[in-house]
Amino acid sequence: MKHIRIVRLLALLICMVGLSAQAQFAKPEAAIKYRQSALTVMGTHFGRLAEMAQGKVPFDAKVAQDNEAVFAVVSKLPWAAFVEGSDKGETKAKAEIWSEGAKFKEAQDKLMAEAMKLNAAAKTGKLEDLKVAVGAVGGACKNCHDQFRAK
Amino acid sequence: MKHIRIVRLLALLICMVGLSAQAQFAKPEAAIKYRQSALTVMGTHFGRLAEMAQGKVPFDAKVAQDNEAVFAVVSKLPWAAFVEGSDKGETKAKAEIWSEGAKFKEAQDKLMAEAMKLNAAAKTGKLEDLKVAVGAVGGACKNCHDQFRAK
Repeated sequence: MKHIRIVRLLALLICMVGLSAQAQFAKPEAAIKYRQSALTVMGTHFGRLAEMAQGKVPFDAKVAQDNEAVFAVVSKLPWAAFVEGSDKGETKAKAEIWSEGAKFKEAQDKLMAEAMKLNAAAKTGKLEDLKVAVGAVGGACKNCHDQFRAK
Repeated sequence: MKHIRIVRLLALLICMVGLSAQAQFAKPEAAIKYRQSALTVMGTHFGRLAEMAQGKVPFDAKVAQDNEAVFAVVSKLPWAAFVEGSDKGETKAKAEIWSEGAKFKEAQDKLMAEAMKLNAAAKTGKLEDLKVAVGAVGGACKNCHDQFRAK
């Protein structure tokens, strides 16, 4: 009896978490627009770090830190918006995001781990550290895009 | 002679600042997409605070703080992307943004000031404080939209 109650409680909790994630967006289109927007902002600031890492613009430790600070916040945002039902419409999101949720989560976790290293690298103020961390974050972006974003 | 030199130096500095703001975006379209994206993310998180303030969703101090933390960072971003030449294309930005730059800056400063109060209000964990600050931020958004965003 006790086990059944616990299972029911867990099922209820999982359902509530699912609902609350979806309730954050009035419609699937709103979720799609939000995550694309977050990815655009994230990509813009990461792009500025990448340009420095690649020597396309002069390295400036303060500018790098400012861009990293935005990246650190915004890179956390898109994932909650891959809600059920938002696989249709103006999106390049592949069905695997939902059918292989654990793998998608793994790709996110990889990015979050590399983003933390980027944060540490930006703080050292050394271009060499930035180069390594930017390369690893870029790899995490590519890894996720290769698996979960349509061409 | 000294005055002329100072004036020249100032002119050069102003020019450099202008160039560096523009250089952040490869094309005007990139600036437009970026600022619209930042405004979407900003509006989504502000919307969640507004729903709480209006009693549409239950007040949760932690959720309010989390949304405010994103708003605080992202609300600083759109303004640098109103670069010269980005008044054409897929944008509702009115010409007054560029022809009345000081007024546009004033509207931004007003928002930034209210955003700081929102930050303090979210920290108190009191719904009443949130209501006041959300109302003031909403007013600052409307003030800017009324003047500078086409219908």
